[in-house]
Amino acid sequence: MMSRITCSELSQKITTAAAAAAEIKDGDRVAMSGFTGSGYPKVVPGAIADRARCAHDRGEDFAVELWTGASTAPELDGVLAEVGAVSKRLPFQSDPAMRRSINAGDTEYVDTHLSHSAQQAWFGFYGKLDVAVVEVAAILPNGLLVPGSSVGNSKTWLDLADRVILEVNSWHPRAYEGFHDVYYGTRRPPERLPIQLLEPMQRIGDPYLRVDRKKVVAVVETTAPDRNLPFKPADEDSKAIASHLVDFLRYEIDAGRLPKELLPLQSGVGNVANAVMANLADSEFAGLTAYTEVIQDGMLDLIDNGKLKSVSATALSLSAERAADFNENIEAYKGRILLRTQEMSNHPEAIRRLGVIAVNGMVEADIYGNVNSTHVMGSSIINGIGGSGDFARNAYLNFFVTNSLAKGGAISSIVPFASHVDHTEHDTQILVTEQGLADLRGLSPLARAQRIIDNCAHPDYRELLQDYLDRAIVANPAGRHTPHLLSEALSWHARYQETGSMRD
Amino acid sequence: MMSRITCSELSQKITTAAAAAAEIKDGDRVAMSGFTGSGYPKVVPGAIADRARCAHDRGEDFAVELWTGASTAPELDGVLAEVGAVSKRLPFQSDPAMRRSINAGDTEYVDTHLSHSAQQAWFGFYGKLDVAVVEVAAILPNGLLVPGSSVGNSKTWLDLADRVILEVNSWHPRAYEGFHDVYYGTRRPPERLPIQLLEPMQRIGDPYLRVDRKKVVAVVETTAPDRNLPFKPADEDSKAIASHLVDFLRYEIDAGRLPKELLPLQSGVGNVANAVMANLADSEFAGLTAYTEVIQDGMLDLIDNGKLKSVSATALSLSAERAADFNENIEAYKGRILLRTQEMSNHPEAIRRLGVIAVNGMVEADIYGNVNSTHVMGSSIINGIGGSGDFARNAYLNFFVTNSLAKGGAISSIVPFASHVDHTEHDTQILVTEQGLADLRGLSPLARAQRIIDNCAHPDYRELLQDYLDRAIVANPAGRHTPHLLSEALSWHARYQETGSMRD
Repeated sequence: MMSRITCSELSQKITTAAAAAAEIKDGDRVAMSGFTGSGYPKVVPGAIADRARCAHDRGEDFAVELWTGASTAPELDGVLAEVGAVSKRLPFQSDPAMRRSINAGDTEYVDTHLSHSAQQAWFGFYGKLDVAVVEVAAILPNGLLVPGSSVGNSKTWLDLADRVILEVNSWHPRAYEGFHDVYYGTRRPPERLPIQLLEPMQRIGDPYLRVDRKKVVAVVETTAPDRNLPFKPADEDSKAIASHLVDFLRYEIDAGRLPKELLPLQSGVGNVANAVMANLADSEFAGLTAYTEVIQDGMLDLIDNGKLKSVSATALSLSAERAADFNENIEAYKGRILLRTQEMSNHPEAIRRLGVIAVNGMVEADIYGNVNSTHVMGSSIINGIGGSGDFARNAYLNFFVTNSLAKGGAISSIVPFASHVDHTEHDTQILVTEQGLADLRGLSPLARAQRIIDNCAHPDYRELLQDYLDRAIVANPAGRHTPHLLSEALSWHARYQETGSMRD
Repeated sequence: MMSRITCSELSQKITTAAAAAAEIKDGDRVAMSGFTGSGYPKVVPGAIADRARCAHDRGEDFAVELWTGASTAPELDGVLAEVGAVSKRLPFQSDPAMRRSINAGDTEYVDTHLSHSAQQAWFGFYGKLDVAVVEVAAILPNGLLVPGSSVGNSKTWLDLADRVILEVNSWHPRAYEGFHDVYYGTRRPPERLPIQLLEPMQRIGDPYLRVDRKKVVAVVETTAPDRNLPFKPADEDSKAIASHLVDFLRYEIDAGRLPKELLPLQSGVGNVANAVMANLADSEFAGLTAYTEVIQDGMLDLIDNGKLKSVSATALSLSAERAADFNENIEAYKGRILLRTQEMSNHPEAIRRLGVIAVNGMVEADIYGNVNSTHVMGSSIINGIGGSGDFARNAYLNFFVTNSLAKGGAISSIVPFASHVDHTEHDTQILVTEQGLADLRGLSPLARAQRIIDNCAHPDYRELLQDYLDRAIVANPAGRHTPHLLSEALSWHARYQETGSMRD
């Protein structure tokens, strides 16, 4: 097999993960590649965790700030969180051990719009970056880097870091070359220029990541697969949500508000997103495009059956089977998939210009359309806002989807008052549960409330919500724009905490 | 005096306000010009109100949907609200009578990001537009329209409406010609193109509004002044806020995160905004620019003393004295002030590219940095979100400012839980009260809470806030990302409603 490292200068820096990890010191800011379990370094994080464990055993401090593209995997977030080696984490995570560390107050978590993370790091808002650890598929003779299954923030981390560690992972097909578009036209204000992107598949950058070879302190070879979470087939509720949503798209086409090939789709991660893709796959739609963050199994299916012409994203996030299949048949996807920096995949300028149709999950919505995407009962973080704000705010249409019930009916996803707000009433357009769809465009809060209760709430909670609304209207003769009973507004959540159910 | 109407076809349509108002029917959607009390029609709204009153006296229904640029004046929002003639209002208002009608539940209010209103109307999200009523300074021989003191959404209203009524107001100087830049490159997705704007004063459009002359059903001549609210000199608290803010800008320059001429300024409406301008006027700063919504007295002062090179906005909003002075000396401002459509003044693409420094007022912030800009005690609307979301989300730096106390100390502007959220913790960067400034960039919610309590809260409430936070941390051993006591979170507001004070 050909070596993946064909740059003589960098091949001289090949070493072990342990030796590479020795470059990282307590207190360092360390930025790693990786987005939704793809393209993250597989072995250096574990070696850093080993260093931390040894230091802690000796009674010494050892913790780093950890920046990434988005979520990673047990071999990165997991191992570092488990040894208490992360003092601060940004901009997104979804790892159980990391989540525990954050919710225990041991790790500071800065939960950031994914389009903001690279620029704010560059602006210096997070401090100086010490080390970048970036996984790639290959190093070319001239030192250019071929990314693998994600691009994320790698471009910015390579630019900003004082020292760079490269992991070259031959699990990624060598044929990834040509799948990436790394925009090198970014500037800091006042030097910024328009991003000349007119359609999802347009190339505006380079197929390679650049690195200053002098900054590279170690190159480590690996062969480990991405996280590759199993793909769950859609359940009945997800199918119902997908069906409401796709019917609504048909309605919008009939009303002349959408072209028949729709507009570029964005779809958040998860079961419902896959169900929407499955519904579209079985539909009359054709000539679709996507401008999204992540490509899941369902989107590959849509490409395979010819309905989806092309997808721009920043990462793949596949099941193990689908990833193996993709790696084997990768050439079939060339020219139909483009992986960009997350700064571009999530850029407000691009999303608004292209007129993206955004579909994102939520934890709960209140009756006025304020959406909580991140917290359980106001206090505990689940994952983070990710790109949902970038897409929802700038989309042509945005959908927020969830089951109407959680915890076997003990929790209603439609509540009087959201226990945390990630998307405000000014931003949310269309809410969907398995019960139905509430189109909130052009409605006042009070009109929205009635539509959400009628269309989205589960029947078990509908009367309770109506009762809250009716009494709030009566109690606020001069506050009927968004009538609330503040002493009761969060009582459903408090009741759940006390009794294990939101119901009386 | 030369007539302002030099188009023979349109001069034949000159008529009275009453005759023009007869073109408007019950149930019509009527879109009017006007932004922050500038450039709104002065007489047709009153004539519509007369029609409504007569209809109501006869026992007939008469109400319209009313769309504008932003806030108007008693002669528009006021007269129509007072006779109950507005069924729905969007996208912004600040009129006492209109506010009462909304909070009484008599008028539906759709409180919209100001950059979203034109495009969403065009997309058809608000229904078909029947009539546009637009004030201009002059009509050229070829039918092109010279706007006056605001542009707002007039371009879109003229494009979309079936019928058009023009008010030609000779109070506006004829020399307004050349002060406007009306972008006619807007498209609906997927046809949109990059907005090729590189610096605040760059022209990318036409100096005139276009109208299809066949759609014009009436032209009405007026001479009435804009609203022209009196300018209040800055009080001590506003001066303290401005001083913290300007000192912080110096700090950012010293840290290498801002150029010494800063980046384009955006400043919300009000006393603090003017105080910031006054502070800059007395400072070492020079070569400043602004990319903002509204030009108030303070910004004109900054132009006059040479510190501010140029301002892009969508409207003037001056005191009567300053407006008289401006109208007299308007030629001195040519090339230094450009009035754009609000779609462009507030466009995410432009704001992010230019790297705007955004300063906006707020009602309250919670300890985690969620900001309420719109509601009193969760239920009653004050004005609306306006452009604060457009600017805050896309700014290079954003500041939210308020006094730490309201109602003589009965209300703390820093609370455990915001009673309404317009800007989430993911968006807010820097909070400022007269007590001090909290830089929240790169902090976790818990770290933000401590900084906000320490730096921004009034001493009278600091211990209460600290006590809430401390107990919330203890009560949430697995929820220390954003620890809350949900049964207490809104108790400060509920207590104020019951006892007239947030204090125990």
